[in-house]
Amino acid sequence: MAQGKRVVLASRPVGEPKPSDFRIEEFAPASPGEGQVLLRTIWLSLDPYMRGRMSDAPSYAAPVPIGGVMEGGAVSEVIASNNPAFAKGDIVQARTGWQTHALSDGKGLVKVDPKLAPISTAVGVLGMPGMTAYVGLLEIGKPQAGETVVVAAASGAVGSAVGQIARIKGARAIGIAGGKDKCDYVKRELGFDDCLDHRDPELAAKLKGACPKGIDVYFENVGGAVFDAVFPLLNPFARVPVCGLIAHYNDTEAKPPPWAGVLMRNVLTKRLTIRGFIVSDFAARHADFLRDMSSWVREGKVKYREFVTEGLENAPSAFMGLLKGANFGKQLVRVGPDKDKS
Amino acid sequence: MAQGKRVVLASRPVGEPKPSDFRIEEFAPASPGEGQVLLRTIWLSLDPYMRGRMSDAPSYAAPVPIGGVMEGGAVSEVIASNNPAFAKGDIVQARTGWQTHALSDGKGLVKVDPKLAPISTAVGVLGMPGMTAYVGLLEIGKPQAGETVVVAAASGAVGSAVGQIARIKGARAIGIAGGKDKCDYVKRELGFDDCLDHRDPELAAKLKGACPKGIDVYFENVGGAVFDAVFPLLNPFARVPVCGLIAHYNDTEAKPPPWAGVLMRNVLTKRLTIRGFIVSDFAARHADFLRDMSSWVREGKVKYREFVTEGLENAPSAFMGLLKGANFGKQLVRVGPDKDKS
Repeated sequence: MAQGKRVVLASRPVGEPKPSDFRIEEFAPASPGEGQVLLRTIWLSLDPYMRGRMSDAPSYAAPVPIGGVMEGGAVSEVIASNNPAFAKGDIVQARTGWQTHALSDGKGLVKVDPKLAPISTAVGVLGMPGMTAYVGLLEIGKPQAGETVVVAAASGAVGSAVGQIARIKGARAIGIAGGKDKCDYVKRELGFDDCLDHRDPELAAKLKGACPKGIDVYFENVGGAVFDAVFPLLNPFARVPVCGLIAHYNDTEAKPPPWAGVLMRNVLTKRLTIRGFIVSDFAARHADFLRDMSSWVREGKVKYREFVTEGLENAPSAFMGLLKGANFGKQLVRVGPDKDKS
Repeated sequence: MAQGKRVVLASRPVGEPKPSDFRIEEFAPASPGEGQVLLRTIWLSLDPYMRGRMSDAPSYAAPVPIGGVMEGGAVSEVIASNNPAFAKGDIVQARTGWQTHALSDGKGLVKVDPKLAPISTAVGVLGMPGMTAYVGLLEIGKPQAGETVVVAAASGAVGSAVGQIARIKGARAIGIAGGKDKCDYVKRELGFDDCLDHRDPELAAKLKGACPKGIDVYFENVGGAVFDAVFPLLNPFARVPVCGLIAHYNDTEAKPPPWAGVLMRNVLTKRLTIRGFIVSDFAARHADFLRDMSSWVREGKVKYREFVTEGLENAPSAFMGLLKGANFGKQLVRVGPDKDKS
């Protein structure tokens, strides 16, 4: 048995996480007990929500304890099984965190069929980020044909799916992304109607130009200057699914935004809907999501891009980069080879 | 034919409306032309939304022009008819504004059956305010048995219905009202579980005490200090239908509220729904509303109280009082006798 490695939370970050907030430990993976399986991580998914788990501010989920393994979704291989539901060699999706090996009693493990799609998609377009886009956009955003949908982080795992699903539903999709390369990709490869650079000092004016009929759905995953630019353009009856606020995750103080004094007045006069959600709130839609999204991916209607960091030891730097938009596409860490040669 | 009187908008108020913002004019009511009816106003309804119509800030409805008749709902008698759908003596509900007489082509007139309920209820519990409570609470608030519903202006036309409907649905109803008499009425007559005085400097602490399991639905019709006290108590998945912000209607500047810097974070982590609406957004529910509400009123499950000001010339002072909570129950103006003796 190879030696195991894991990344634990060394200290709670103040502002931006720094390398010393993480610690890499070695451990000896245990043999599975009765009913257990031993998993070897192939792909680790890095996602912005993990910043919240590093903090002990009140949230929808308990924080990672100091010294605890960083949380996260993974695609793993069953390398030993005392559980009749899983065989050695099975590929599964599991929330086993930032580590090379994990024991599981089988609860929460979802089998992944390697013939259907690359297994990494089980934590990407066919996994949590894809489903976040699907349920947030369709259950709360409810885009209608001809409406305008705006989403930031448009080259990322969630944003890219939001815009492409909006297009499938007949809406106009306007993306916002960091830099020319990402914007070009969003327009040319993903087929958004337009994509603007959030670093552009003229963002507000350009967004207004790109949305001549206003904004009907704003899928909120960033906050900050993007929402400030979006807010005055929201149409009557606009819907704002709120799934993330990455621009604020490293905030050390809560500053009143420019729209603070007029938010509720606008909610009233424009009859806005602002609604927070997390993907598990819509767990009942999982079968619909898998059916629709896998066929859209197969038909080329939803494309995705992966951004792979090699080696678990590089997960902390990759995660710090993700919070600054250094990734280009779904951020993955390749923790081990696809097929175990050991 | 009696001389007609009307109240017109003399100037747009800055802050609180003052008597000189209104002007009373006399006019000679015209005879109905082909297809028209002449209406004599019996009851004029005064409602907080009218403050918005006096302003030319962007809203869901066009402002009353300077010199124009103040808008409003009324219950009126048809005193002359050239329209086969209406007979002399019919009682109708109409949006004819602050005046003693009005011509109508019949569009938008709704016949009122005086045998079913006092005709004044057509602009009260069985009219726009009652329906505002019904659709906002049931379509957006969706209270479940055992949940806690909070509403301000709880002795008023909308708030009193919100709390009583919440109780019918098995929820706890906590009211907020201005002063001991109103609070006593809300608790003893209307059967709310509790009612707090918004002037109490300990409002926030007392609201927390009255809502030991937090707040699941906050029906927002006031804003200001009440929402500031409610905000930290909102439970995960809480719903906030926003139907009015009377505490802000006379604001001359938009100040960032205390929760401004953390609103969106709370929307996300608690998965809140904040949604503005006006009653006409749910026009399709009118038949359901009338059926349910009239049976609840008949069964004594929904009680209401009217606050009557005599004479159209007193409508401006009654309206200025309404904005300060001087009314106790649904604010009406008796413009003319129930039965025309002329």
